[in-house]
Amino acid sequence: MTARLQSHQYGKAETRVVRIVRDTARHEIRDLNVTSALRGTFEDAYLTGDQSAVLPTDTQKNMVFAYAKQHGVESPERFGILLAEHFVDDIAPVTGARVDVQEYTWVRAVVDGAEHDHTWLRSGQEVRTASVTVDQGTTTVIAGLKDLTVLKSTGSEFTGFLKDEYTTLQETDDRVLATSLIAQWRYAGTDVDFDATYATVRETLISTFATLHSLALQQTLWHMGAQVIERVPEVVEIRFAAPNKHHFLSDLSPFGLENPGEVFWAADRPYGLIEAVIVREGAAPVDAAWTRSVGAP
Amino acid sequence: MTARLQSHQYGKAETRVVRIVRDTARHEIRDLNVTSALRGTFEDAYLTGDQSAVLPTDTQKNMVFAYAKQHGVESPERFGILLAEHFVDDIAPVTGARVDVQEYTWVRAVVDGAEHDHTWLRSGQEVRTASVTVDQGTTTVIAGLKDLTVLKSTGSEFTGFLKDEYTTLQETDDRVLATSLIAQWRYAGTDVDFDATYATVRETLISTFATLHSLALQQTLWHMGAQVIERVPEVVEIRFAAPNKHHFLSDLSPFGLENPGEVFWAADRPYGLIEAVIVREGAAPVDAAWTRSVGAP
Amino acid sequence: MTARLQSHQYGKAETRVVRIVRDTARHEIRDLNVTSALRGTFEDAYLTGDQSAVLPTDTQKNMVFAYAKQHGVESPERFGILLAEHFVDDIAPVTGARVDVQEYTWVRAVVDGAEHDHTWLRSGQEVRTASVTVDQGTTTVIAGLKDLTVLKSTGSEFTGFLKDEYTTLQETDDRVLATSLIAQWRYAGTDVDFDATYATVRETLISTFATLHSLALQQTLWHMGAQVIERVPEVVEIRFAAPNKHHFLSDLSPFGLENPGEVFWAADRPYGLIEAVIVREGAAPVDAAWTRSVGAP
Amino acid sequence: MTARLQSHQYGKAETRVVRIVRDTARHEIRDLNVTSALRGTFEDAYLTGDQSAVLPTDTQKNMVFAYAKQHGVESPERFGILLAEHFVDDIAPVTGARVDVQEYTWVRAVVDGAEHDHTWLRSGQEVRTASVTVDQGTTTVIAGLKDLTVLKSTGSEFTGFLKDEYTTLQETDDRVLATSLIAQWRYAGTDVDFDATYATVRETLISTFATLHSLALQQTLWHMGAQVIERVPEVVEIRFAAPNKHHFLSDLSPFGLENPGEVFWAADRPYGLIEAVIVREGAAPVDAAWTRSVGAP
Repeated sequence: MTARLQSHQYGKAETRVVRIVRDTARHEIRDLNVTSALRGTFEDAYLTGDQSAVLPTDTQKNMVFAYAKQHGVESPERFGILLAEHFVDDIAPVTGARVDVQEYTWVRAVVDGAEHDHTWLRSGQEVRTASVTVDQGTTTVIAGLKDLTVLKSTGSEFTGFLKDEYTTLQETDDRVLATSLIAQWRYAGTDVDFDATYATVRETLISTFATLHSLALQQTLWHMGAQVIERVPEVVEIRFAAPNKHHFLSDLSPFGLENPGEVFWAADRPYGLIEAVIVREGAAPVDAAWTRSVGAP
Repeated sequence: MTARLQSHQYGKAETRVVRIVRDTARHEIRDLNVTSALRGTFEDAYLTGDQSAVLPTDTQKNMVFAYAKQHGVESPERFGILLAEHFVDDIAPVTGARVDVQEYTWVRAVVDGAEHDHTWLRSGQEVRTASVTVDQGTTTVIAGLKDLTVLKSTGSEFTGFLKDEYTTLQETDDRVLATSLIAQWRYAGTDVDFDATYATVRETLISTFATLHSLALQQTLWHMGAQVIERVPEVVEIRFAAPNKHHFLSDLSPFGLENPGEVFWAADRPYGLIEAVIVREGAAPVDAAWTRSVGAP
Repeated sequence: MTARLQSHQYGKAETRVVRIVRDTARHEIRDLNVTSALRGTFEDAYLTGDQSAVLPTDTQKNMVFAYAKQHGVESPERFGILLAEHFVDDIAPVTGARVDVQEYTWVRAVVDGAEHDHTWLRSGQEVRTASVTVDQGTTTVIAGLKDLTVLKSTGSEFTGFLKDEYTTLQETDDRVLATSLIAQWRYAGTDVDFDATYATVRETLISTFATLHSLALQQTLWHMGAQVIERVPEVVEIRFAAPNKHHFLSDLSPFGLENPGEVFWAADRPYGLIEAVIVREGAAPVDAAWTRSVGAP
Repeated sequence: MTARLQSHQYGKAETRVVRIVRDTARHEIRDLNVTSALRGTFEDAYLTGDQSAVLPTDTQKNMVFAYAKQHGVESPERFGILLAEHFVDDIAPVTGARVDVQEYTWVRAVVDGAEHDHTWLRSGQEVRTASVTVDQGTTTVIAGLKDLTVLKSTGSEFTGFLKDEYTTLQETDDRVLATSLIAQWRYAGTDVDFDATYATVRETLISTFATLHSLALQQTLWHMGAQVIERVPEVVEIRFAAPNKHHFLSDLSPFGLENPGEVFWAADRPYGLIEAVIVREGAAPVDAAWTRSVGAP
């Protein structure tokens, strides 16, 4: 046999837990989608089928619910830290763990001008994300968001680009710029007010997108990331993937109509995809926390 | 040949048009997904392949963009009326039309505490809908919303139901009630302030959901609909489909933990689906406007 | 109060049941997604919140599993008939029922040239559908399929169509024709070999699509439907919705390249949507079986 | 400013190209979804907004169509190699490239027992994948598949696993095992008959899944991978992600029914996710080819 098992992990994906705090009449809600992956001495499960070191994925699911009761959900990051460190500390064969959390946001229903105590509306398509990795005794937290769709109807151009024999795109000095942003940022440590810092990063991303006159999505990403690094000392690295949600100006000239930036066709595919990794000068890299396997949900 | 062509229609589905108003520095945006379906004397297109009465679906798409420029988008309902009446009035073979519009909501980005002039965030998963039907010379408008996800963490019970030999469900006097609501309401005419009325209906649905102590989702739907009929004189009929987004109480007793309504598993499938049609006493029905074909998007 | 509850129904959507027959070493599998909706004397559930006539949707789910054990799944249509008639016959408040079944197809894995006894691969994106309606004592069966994606790379034209001032589409005498077909056909009765008839209808649809020189998708639909009516005496009506999956010829002329029907861009939206209802001469209509509510999954 | 641009790439995602070969009456079809990402000296696009080194993503899309015409699509891997090497060789600022290709499979329609010349049906949910990376002058090809859903109705157990205080799962010696497999394998070089090798790998995966008595999904993955390494000398590494599509035995005991492995509930979420990386002994790793960025589609 010439094959060798190089690495492996296993876990429970997409455990959907909703935690209500009802200590007073004004309830609180946190709505999470939790995925755990464990690394450790599980070779025999693969090579011989011996499962004696394998804690079932069903048990990992149970832990999510039990921990939500016992510890509450202070923030997705804190909940991920609790779970990931528990897996590594308390389950003997486990040497490393990754816990990915998606949080769905709810806003209180407003009734007669006042926020309701126990009724909410799901807010936005935007998802808050947190990835906690415990690797070789170190806990690394990456916070983030995805599907934050932002659009500006002016203040964006795209000119002066490279042209070759396959280039047909026209330059434009005023276009719609829109993206469904994915951003993930790594904290230097775990002593962070995760909810407050999340709000600050998000606000920084949005205000920079809004106020920067954009020469390209690349430039916008750089400024968003640089502003986060500058304003938020806890953040040492931020990564972006920005699908360019193209809004093509509709050609109305066959109908004798001008279209000075008023009517657009919102296209689905293909789309430009712009990416950047921006780091704080001098910060040590933590590659293990960024590694994604081939089947990452 | 024993077959007969009984009915038919054709059109363009999902034309994605974004209309920016930029007459001042403070832009406005409306973001629509428009589907049109034409009925008329198109038999030959089917029976013999003669297309001489068939205006291409590509032309219908062009009209959407041209009308967005020429007439703007006052509201999805008004835009649908313009298009549907144009199809019937101006295209000779067309005798009836249906225009379905979905509107996606954007909210202004807030920068330094102020709403930005030309930057927006996509808001909510909720979609506003409008269906305009022109049939035998009459224009009928159905407004609506879908994917309005609401949840209450108390104030809901489900008891006293029918039991048979297949019933295992336990009664509960305090549960999470959540649904991803679909509501569609028909207006008596077209002389309506569609945006303002939409806001009133939506607010009525949400406040009734929040404040009514629910004995079942059926009862909640009835009260939501009755309140709309009572408060909004323009509405003569409202239809609901409410998938019950089940939040099952997690059983933590194997771990020695109590769970008094705090930790829930948000389930995907199967789900209860509750429906109701509520009408204003004395209103004439308009069945043609509610008919959905087998391939309705 | 001026509101009136005009109609209502409730049920359990998307119960995912897989039935294995393992009486011999060569197992059989049927994989269904079952949705039930009950109509009856449930007004009090809405008006006063009294649930004493309401059999929980959870019980309907239990019935699906219990019936799969007790009766097996001879075909989705037969399984739907059993359930729908049980609801109406055995649950006192129920006066009508609709059961919608989707079936997912599996094909046997082939190992060393032979079909395997108990291993399968999911086959195709195509879904088989069955809708059984019991209304006023009559059972009506509508069989169907959806997401049958067919494409022909020649043998299709679109010429001679109506043109107006918004028409920019060019005529073409050789194009790609593709659709993701939805077809639903109604049987005259229930004494049908549903699996065999399904196969015959499906084969007729595909062979007609393939062999007819198409002057438009409308004409293709008519011939598909007429052929089904002609060849399959059990079918009295067939309805189509055919989204035109556009494949646009890529314009390669800027690069000095010709493109005689070789390179296409497969577009997402918008798309033409062509519909037809074709009936057997003299067949009585059964409207109740075709009615779809606003929240039909 | 303390921020630094560490890395970046940009490209065009999801260009949907369909290539027809019509040199004879018997046409051929290849249906691809192509994503390209370029790396190179693009810092100024980010830091100053100078786009003079940036070839538009629109041009990359144009190249996909032009190359499909000029070179045809021998296989997704070969098409990816052509594009990726073109980007690096012919566009001055480009130093590295990645081209990801998804291929959708079509099977010929069968009419009167014979395969049709120019009509096809979309086949399966399964997608063939190819990733070509050009990095520091070396071209690496990773082939793969995703969404290959396989199920066995016996021949699978799960016993002897680790138990802790949160474990409630029961052991079972006969269960349904199903997964929607993701597999990606790396070739030692590019002198490969990609279509033939793909077929061999796929057949090996399926036959191993079918014939191995499974003690756990982990063990099944190992054997699938080891068999591929053994049988296919061109493959030096294979990676798996296998979401466990749980089929839970329905508890019919409340209804007085036994259920000896016959009726199952096909669950959606959560699901176990089992992963493995299996390599040929002595093969050099190529990490750059496996790196996935935060926004990988």
